[in-house]
Amino acid sequence: MELFFLGTGAGVPSKQRNVSSIALKLLQERGSVWLFDCGESTQHQILHTHIKPGKIEKIFITHLHGDHIFGLPGLLGSRSFQGGESTVELYGPPGIKEFVQTSLAISQTHLKYNIHFHEINEEGILFEDEQFRVKVRRLDHGVSSYGYRIEEKDKIGELQPDKLKSAGIEPGPLYKQIKENPKVTLPDGRMIHREEFTGPPKKGKTVCIFGDTRYSKAYAEFVEHADVLIHEATFGAEDEQLAYEYYHSSTKQAATLAAEAKVGRLLLTHISSRYLEEDIPQLLEGAANVFPNTTIVNDFDQVNV
Amino acid sequence: MELFFLGTGAGVPSKQRNVSSIALKLLQERGSVWLFDCGESTQHQILHTHIKPGKIEKIFITHLHGDHIFGLPGLLGSRSFQGGESTVELYGPPGIKEFVQTSLAISQTHLKYNIHFHEINEEGILFEDEQFRVKVRRLDHGVSSYGYRIEEKDKIGELQPDKLKSAGIEPGPLYKQIKENPKVTLPDGRMIHREEFTGPPKKGKTVCIFGDTRYSKAYAEFVEHADVLIHEATFGAEDEQLAYEYYHSSTKQAATLAAEAKVGRLLLTHISSRYLEEDIPQLLEGAANVFPNTTIVNDFDQVNV
Repeated sequence: MELFFLGTGAGVPSKQRNVSSIALKLLQERGSVWLFDCGESTQHQILHTHIKPGKIEKIFITHLHGDHIFGLPGLLGSRSFQGGESTVELYGPPGIKEFVQTSLAISQTHLKYNIHFHEINEEGILFEDEQFRVKVRRLDHGVSSYGYRIEEKDKIGELQPDKLKSAGIEPGPLYKQIKENPKVTLPDGRMIHREEFTGPPKKGKTVCIFGDTRYSKAYAEFVEHADVLIHEATFGAEDEQLAYEYYHSSTKQAATLAAEAKVGRLLLTHISSRYLEEDIPQLLEGAANVFPNTTIVNDFDQVNV
Repeated sequence: MELFFLGTGAGVPSKQRNVSSIALKLLQERGSVWLFDCGESTQHQILHTHIKPGKIEKIFITHLHGDHIFGLPGLLGSRSFQGGESTVELYGPPGIKEFVQTSLAISQTHLKYNIHFHEINEEGILFEDEQFRVKVRRLDHGVSSYGYRIEEKDKIGELQPDKLKSAGIEPGPLYKQIKENPKVTLPDGRMIHREEFTGPPKKGKTVCIFGDTRYSKAYAEFVEHADVLIHEATFGAEDEQLAYEYYHSSTKQAATLAAEAKVGRLLLTHISSRYLEEDIPQLLEGAANVFPNTTIVNDFDQVNV
């Protein structure tokens, strides 16, 4: 899976950074893209990428502030106009349904596909299938704001031809059947268990994507051992008091959480337009002193997980 | 006054053209800007101009399709964030108030200024003051769509110092008083009428800005003798049937109206992304054959009226 940053700014767009949106590209895994937040002009950013709106399967909204949702009606409308027909699963705080439905109704936007709304009322597992599990946790931002933990399940190991041959099972269509089923009855009547003929399972990856939030040590458990944590950093390390007052975090606070939770890598986003290009190294330093494997991401950055 | 085109595309944004928005810059006339439509990413387009959102005094919406309104909540929010404090007068079809208020409420966007909503229910004079008169007319677009006629009133002529001196009135603060009042009583007790001491009035300009619409000859009276007509041209001259089916106009139809109404200049906008850069000369030809003084405008074009 790959993370693609469509907007890495805070509050209002600037020439350098658009407002929030992140695409989690799962093209190899499930031929689709999941979107996290959809600030105004997200569809415009997508025009400059290889992402196809019709491939967007799920949209997760962290919170309802305008810089995270005002791009939704336009994106949903254009997805239909461009031929998107598959259902979109839309997750977010209560109110997201009214916002989308009111916008589409008043603008007389008639979609050629369905939206399933999932308004979040409690923490826990939000979605689960054979491949993925998505958990959600409340954050501290004055309004309902959520963090998402996307866990890819472990994939079964590769078939081991040596072992299969030793058991007298020759290569052929049977291998595909064994690969896809935990138990298989062979033509000679024997029943075999797949796990006896596969190598070690391939560990699934875990990504945590946070909405706007104050720092809290209490989030460490939710984030623990994630391969990647994406956290807001609206303020520099020296402005923790301001960050607290505005329900945001500093670079250093995000890094503190990353260190406490022993994540693999920290990606900082939601960078205020107060900071100019030349301020970025100092911003980064505030975090990297605490958690070295930190990056401040830019619009159009792709990060392979 | 100057027209500034912030978005000249139709339906969905493309890399070349954003969705609809036009700024009428009245900086010399009244220190403000009037906006006509506000498609998604209008505030992003404004970032690349000298327009200050705080100077936006009035916003006129032609109709409620998404490509004409989805940029409103973001623009209004950013205008406040950037310090705008003056009231915004917002005109548009019924529903515009619910769209804006729902978007701002759900996103908890708290503006530092007021919006006065004016939902349009009838044709006629929508606004009038000493400088300007704005008339509105229904168009034919399947949904409520309006055309606006912005008339600048004639300005009083220049004071004629020769005439004033002949009447024994010497230069001084009195001149300013005479300039600003139709009648003035002089220190010597005489009452004078300004019109006796001014040159010919300066003719005000008229601009007509149409929302999406089918062609109709019936619009000629409303548009008559305008200095500039801004008309949609979603289809080429050869696609009049398609234009009719989709409630739009062709280049040639827009030119026909311009010719019938004897306007000074025709500006074509709302160009479909079906047309590539290299198709523009042919599109233009379809109109210019009928009305030579026609231009197909691009994003960021400025036209002095």
